[in-house]
Amino acid sequence: MPDSRRRIAVLGSTGSIGRQTLDVVRAFPDHFQIVALVARSNVALLAEQAREFAPALVGCTDDSPATRAQLEALLPGARPGLAALTAAATHPDVEIVVAATSGLVGVEPVLAAIRAGKTIALANKETLVMAGHLVMPEARRRGVEIRPVDSEHSALWQCLHGERAAEVRRLIITASGGPFRQTPLADMADVTVEQALAHPTWKMGPKITIDSATLMNKGLEVIEAHWLFDIPYERIAVVVHPQSVIHSMVEFEDDSIKMQASLPSMHLPIQHALSFPARLARTGTALTRELRWPEVARLDFEEVDLARFPCLRLAYEAGKRGGTAPSVLVGADEQAVALFLRGELKLHEIAETLETVLARHRIVDDPDLATVLEVSEWAQDEVLRLRGLPPRARAVSAAPSGAVAGA
Amino acid sequence: MPDSRRRIAVLGSTGSIGRQTLDVVRAFPDHFQIVALVARSNVALLAEQAREFAPALVGCTDDSPATRAQLEALLPGARPGLAALTAAATHPDVEIVVAATSGLVGVEPVLAAIRAGKTIALANKETLVMAGHLVMPEARRRGVEIRPVDSEHSALWQCLHGERAAEVRRLIITASGGPFRQTPLADMADVTVEQALAHPTWKMGPKITIDSATLMNKGLEVIEAHWLFDIPYERIAVVVHPQSVIHSMVEFEDDSIKMQASLPSMHLPIQHALSFPARLARTGTALTRELRWPEVARLDFEEVDLARFPCLRLAYEAGKRGGTAPSVLVGADEQAVALFLRGELKLHEIAETLETVLARHRIVDDPDLATVLEVSEWAQDEVLRLRGLPPRARAVSAAPSGAVAGA
Repeated sequence: MPDSRRRIAVLGSTGSIGRQTLDVVRAFPDHFQIVALVARSNVALLAEQAREFAPALVGCTDDSPATRAQLEALLPGARPGLAALTAAATHPDVEIVVAATSGLVGVEPVLAAIRAGKTIALANKETLVMAGHLVMPEARRRGVEIRPVDSEHSALWQCLHGERAAEVRRLIITASGGPFRQTPLADMADVTVEQALAHPTWKMGPKITIDSATLMNKGLEVIEAHWLFDIPYERIAVVVHPQSVIHSMVEFEDDSIKMQASLPSMHLPIQHALSFPARLARTGTALTRELRWPEVARLDFEEVDLARFPCLRLAYEAGKRGGTAPSVLVGADEQAVALFLRGELKLHEIAETLETVLARHRIVDDPDLATVLEVSEWAQDEVLRLRGLPPRARAVSAAPSGAVAGA
Repeated sequence: MPDSRRRIAVLGSTGSIGRQTLDVVRAFPDHFQIVALVARSNVALLAEQAREFAPALVGCTDDSPATRAQLEALLPGARPGLAALTAAATHPDVEIVVAATSGLVGVEPVLAAIRAGKTIALANKETLVMAGHLVMPEARRRGVEIRPVDSEHSALWQCLHGERAAEVRRLIITASGGPFRQTPLADMADVTVEQALAHPTWKMGPKITIDSATLMNKGLEVIEAHWLFDIPYERIAVVVHPQSVIHSMVEFEDDSIKMQASLPSMHLPIQHALSFPARLARTGTALTRELRWPEVARLDFEEVDLARFPCLRLAYEAGKRGGTAPSVLVGADEQAVALFLRGELKLHEIAETLETVLARHRIVDDPDLATVLEVSEWAQDEVLRLRGLPPRARAVSAAPSGAVAGA
């Protein structure tokens, strides 16, 4: 009997989405098979994953001497360096590429995977935010599906199943509002790192948790939704929904609204991106759980306060402006959040910093990938210059930019 | 250019659903055209509708001398008597039959329309509750679509668009809970007709408003959903949702839930049943309205209390038992509600009455239409006998029953 399991590459297998992707594969061994695993620098966990899933290709992008030494000891056959991402993304046995690297390194491998005709399960926000104008036309040209993994975009996608894109009036993305939804504006200056890291409904990494507290994360989701569903910004709304049970909604031309709900879980959207068009019933290993009343007795909705969350406003503006503006936003935010986490910037100064950096940038229209990456690097450095801090070492991130510039 | 408008027959055109169907046709003159209108006895309104929509066929089912005289004066070409329903339902120019008569007279014309290959937009509950075992297999045999018009079933249908029936775990029907959701059980005996008629979220006729107060209406919807979506009763749940904004939900095998929402409006489900698979954008005549925050700021959900609403429990039991049990329920409820409205029965005695009548009936399995109608008549009379009241005159309802028995 031929093996009908879907063959998967996971880019970023030791991160949060990568690990949860492997949970899903483990829970449905009859449906999925791992062909390639690529991580950044967590060699110990990658080796464990390789032992369990026996992929044809294992890679580790960090090629520092320490990581290389660890690789040689634990995973002698592994591919080192960033090229492992593209090798995994285009491996001939792979059908679905789970793009779950953090930051900007994922863009080029995703483009390569699209050109190779692979289905993309997209968890990496930067790919569409910075390079949506390159990625989506390429996907359409190749007839390749870009399936969302983010819970909000998965909700929108699910609400659109069986519906006609032309009959959509608005996409309505829900936002928990983060820990500072009700903090008096005057107190926002005194917010501590610990307070900002205490997200009320989702457990995530520190960068995305801070982005959730400022609603920058929601802003990036708006830009992502624009590209993913080919819809103008004027028709993408954000509504605050503190319980994070409704993951997003679609409003149609006839005033009917469809909503998708579940208990907060990343396993569900990952699973749906892998199993679509099928929905898989829970197995012995239950990753998801039924939503039950009275457990979920009340759902609240509030209009979003752009005065409280200027990062969301900036994201709309950058998205509408297009070109390199979203890349400036992503780069500057990356650095501003890092400074906040180190205690060198206050929470409300993140938006101020982004606005200043955006104002200093001269936007390039229809940028190629090299430009997008360079602009994002510039924005990161500009944040440091603004604060009178020394520039970063650029070894790792220069590599893909240079590689693309030379391609 | 050929006329591409969908050609519609409305059975019950002067009732609440019938009038709102004509609102929809009026709002979308480029999409819909009225071919046949049949009412019961409101000749004045029917004549007005006929002037506006110029249908090929007009009929009036009540053939009392008074109505006949009115018809001759106002609508000399109209067809009198119950046969007008079937003539309209099978008219060669008709594509979609809106089945919106109240009570039992609609069953036979719907069956005739199915045999004639017409699409059915079904607003009449009794059709599926009493005769689902006859109607649905016939529709499947003929490849005919039965589209729901009820807001709850329309919501379920919309949530199922683009999804696979085999992957549905549960249908979750929302119930406003009616005016007595929070009334202490001890006070239910003293509920007045006026209190019971004051539905918190929907304006409807008196029978359905009382059925909403007892949740019998929800029980009938459960039975209807069972037939419409071919799903066992164990997988149909009811949840109380006082705001009536979420009209129902579908839970899938993967723990994802889809919900359909809108401001309470019957125009939307009627329109969807007529326009499917298209969704029509509002025209100048706005029948529906956008759902906006903070207008809808909070949605609540509660488990339903079967001790407070024994009619719902009885409906589940009758549905699961099948055969003539739902017909007994419908007939007995029809009469019990009439007695409550006349002040001859207390609200909490409705369920007691239904339970007694159900216990006195010997269920017939797989009944034909004549049996279904006879059993329902018997149940109506049995309620009167129980209360020591004289039996009803049976002229009108004997006609279709006899007609079918002889067919």
